[in-house]
Amino acid sequence: MGGANGKSDHRVWRNARLATTAEGAAGLGIVEKGAIAVRDGLILYAGPEADMPASVGQGAETVDCSGRWITPGLIDCHTHLVYAGNRANEFEMRLAGATYEEVARAGGGIVSSVKSLRAASEDELVAQTLPRLDALIAEGVTAVEVKSGYGLDAENEKKSLRAARRLANERPVTVRTTCLAAHALPPEAKGDKDAFIDLVAGTILPEIAAEKLADAVDGFCEGIAFSPEQMARVFDKAKALGLPVKLHADQLSNLHGAALAARYGALSADHLEYTDEAGAEAMAKAGTVATILPGAYYFIRETKKPPVDLFRRHGVKMAVATDSNPGTSPLASLLLTMNMAATLFGMTVDECLAGVTREAARALGLLGQTGTLEAGKSADLAIWEIERPAELVYRMGFNPLHARIWRGQ
Amino acid sequence: MGGANGKSDHRVWRNARLATTAEGAAGLGIVEKGAIAVRDGLILYAGPEADMPASVGQGAETVDCSGRWITPGLIDCHTHLVYAGNRANEFEMRLAGATYEEVARAGGGIVSSVKSLRAASEDELVAQTLPRLDALIAEGVTAVEVKSGYGLDAENEKKSLRAARRLANERPVTVRTTCLAAHALPPEAKGDKDAFIDLVAGTILPEIAAEKLADAVDGFCEGIAFSPEQMARVFDKAKALGLPVKLHADQLSNLHGAALAARYGALSADHLEYTDEAGAEAMAKAGTVATILPGAYYFIRETKKPPVDLFRRHGVKMAVATDSNPGTSPLASLLLTMNMAATLFGMTVDECLAGVTREAARALGLLGQTGTLEAGKSADLAIWEIERPAELVYRMGFNPLHARIWRGQ
Ligand SMILES: [Zn+2]
Ligand SMILES: [Zn+2]
Repeated sequence: MGGANGKSDHRVWRNARLATTAEGAAGLGIVEKGAIAVRDGLILYAGPEADMPASVGQGAETVDCSGRWITPGLIDCHTHLVYAGNRANEFEMRLAGATYEEVARAGGGIVSSVKSLRAASEDELVAQTLPRLDALIAEGVTAVEVKSGYGLDAENEKKSLRAARRLANERPVTVRTTCLAAHALPPEAKGDKDAFIDLVAGTILPEIAAEKLADAVDGFCEGIAFSPEQMARVFDKAKALGLPVKLHADQLSNLHGAALAARYGALSADHLEYTDEAGAEAMAKAGTVATILPGAYYFIRETKKPPVDLFRRHGVKMAVATDSNPGTSPLASLLLTMNMAATLFGMTVDECLAGVTREAARALGLLGQTGTLEAGKSADLAIWEIERPAELVYRMGFNPLHARIWRGQ
Repeated sequence: MGGANGKSDHRVWRNARLATTAEGAAGLGIVEKGAIAVRDGLILYAGPEADMPASVGQGAETVDCSGRWITPGLIDCHTHLVYAGNRANEFEMRLAGATYEEVARAGGGIVSSVKSLRAASEDELVAQTLPRLDALIAEGVTAVEVKSGYGLDAENEKKSLRAARRLANERPVTVRTTCLAAHALPPEAKGDKDAFIDLVAGTILPEIAAEKLADAVDGFCEGIAFSPEQMARVFDKAKALGLPVKLHADQLSNLHGAALAARYGALSADHLEYTDEAGAEAMAKAGTVATILPGAYYFIRETKKPPVDLFRRHGVKMAVATDSNPGTSPLASLLLTMNMAATLFGMTVDECLAGVTREAARALGLLGQTGTLEAGKSADLAIWEIERPAELVYRMGFNPLHARIWRGQ
């Protein structure tokens, strides 16, 4: 991997405090007088400055961090960032007292996002998504997952995923795409969920796989969306196509989605407000990451919290993500998301920070390449104007990012 | 009032959509094809472009807003922005399971902010506050209230207020200062609240009034702070010194602080989670604004909501503010604060937007000068890259500000 612009980038950041989030290290893997050496986009060394071999720094440009903190670049591992328009009008209607039914009758709900997305060109989708991506990047995000799921037919799902892929050409950021065709039933399906699942498994997924547009396959397993049996058919096809899976599971009720995801060795199961102990056990055994999404919980005024204690007890790894989407989480700040995970769910500072770095990387199947400050990984760094990592979780609506490095640049 | 830098600034913003928030107008006072003419820092005209008298635009520089929205510059009418250090360590301790008592034994709580503030120089206070002020300004804030209350002796309360006044020299923003000496008991008072109130009324307030350091006087009326009787003594002195009053009232219990504030004709009563109907009635009668502070409610995981319905029913005006402070609301986004007021308390989009413009101006006694888009007022504008005002409330962690104008510049 070369520097992002092909230049060599042999640099050492010294006089820094590191939160390496390296696996196995205590807490956040803190190094008080640390240094990071980088060349050709990769970390050569991350650890105590005093222990850095002279060879790795020889001839490097040196940056004095004046005691600032360095964490891995942040990773938002669950977003629906590519969409058209927004649903502020529904938000306004609901505050003015309209019921969900009234909103739906007025053309609201996910159908409205499907309509807007289908009407938008690929260029328009990219243009509308970039400000949201820029907001994430401004807070030190170096990798982001982006789902489709507002297209709901082959053409528009592919358009969404192509727009998502193009984001990586427009900005210095790693993009992982996920096909979420099994997100909702499009109007033309006229209520026939099984026939739509046939379309997803029989046409949409194979076409997307053929064009290599998706890095993973996702679905929404819920009474208002698809049943576990229907999701299993989607997952069977994903497996046959060689694509890893993940699942929107147990958000509004317990359909045992977490266990289903685990059975398929899913990268992650996401939301999980209603997951039970059997689900947590199955996830732990399968190594499926629990992706915690407090933005949606907050925005839809849910009251049932995900069972963070169960996940801790069973050793389920927890990631934290924005779920950025127009309907239930119009959220574009991963820092604020950490605050919500702590304030609303009682996640600790260490859990929140690992959740947007190491565990988010794991949830994307990227832990070998990024998510911690360790030699051999991509030099994806966030440098912060703070006195302690807890400040990244404690503040609300304040961005102390000093600098952001993606692949050494 | 001249332009901020003394230059003439005769300009017309045309092809804009206006939310004037003018009193008496329906809703947000929306003008679909609007224009605003400005000269020497003041609004000459705000209304339909077609109705603008030719004379007000003659010779003016013209700015085409391409249909963007213009609102009054936002006003944060309740902050404790001047402080030293932060309390992220306490936040971390509590998440790790420490009780409030354990945090206090470890030197935490407000006493920790008092210690840090007393140790900081006036220059250090200004330097530490500016990043927080800049975060507000970046979202279109043109006026901000700043309280003392971590000094708790004459010297340190004056230092805080001088630092607050200096903010207005450092940035293009209107600053209103409030003396909150009756915020908490300092350690040296050794538990004697009455003696401390003697100090506040007998020494601190007169000294601050003599130096004209405060535009208003505030207090914290609560079991853990001061009684209504003690607050009345502070208010009596404020009145004698010619200073308007406001009150932190009924946040954690109902001590009838709202009614007390109303009795003194307070500009505002703030928090109000436990205010009852008699309190709301008294506020309505006195014209005391209810300042709603959802950041603290959220951050301390309070469950009792302020009685927004009561305030509506009795015609109490509602402002919305950050309460930005290190202990209970480390919040530096007025946009996010509006989202919280809507999501957590069910305030409507119109209420939220009026709450950070017209009503916030009223709560500061500044409604004659700013807070709405009306001829004769200061040209304090926020120009937004949005399709409808509801987007300012609906999004979380996203800043669509296009431009910000303070006093015409
Ligand atoms: Zn989602
Ligand atoms: Zn306050």
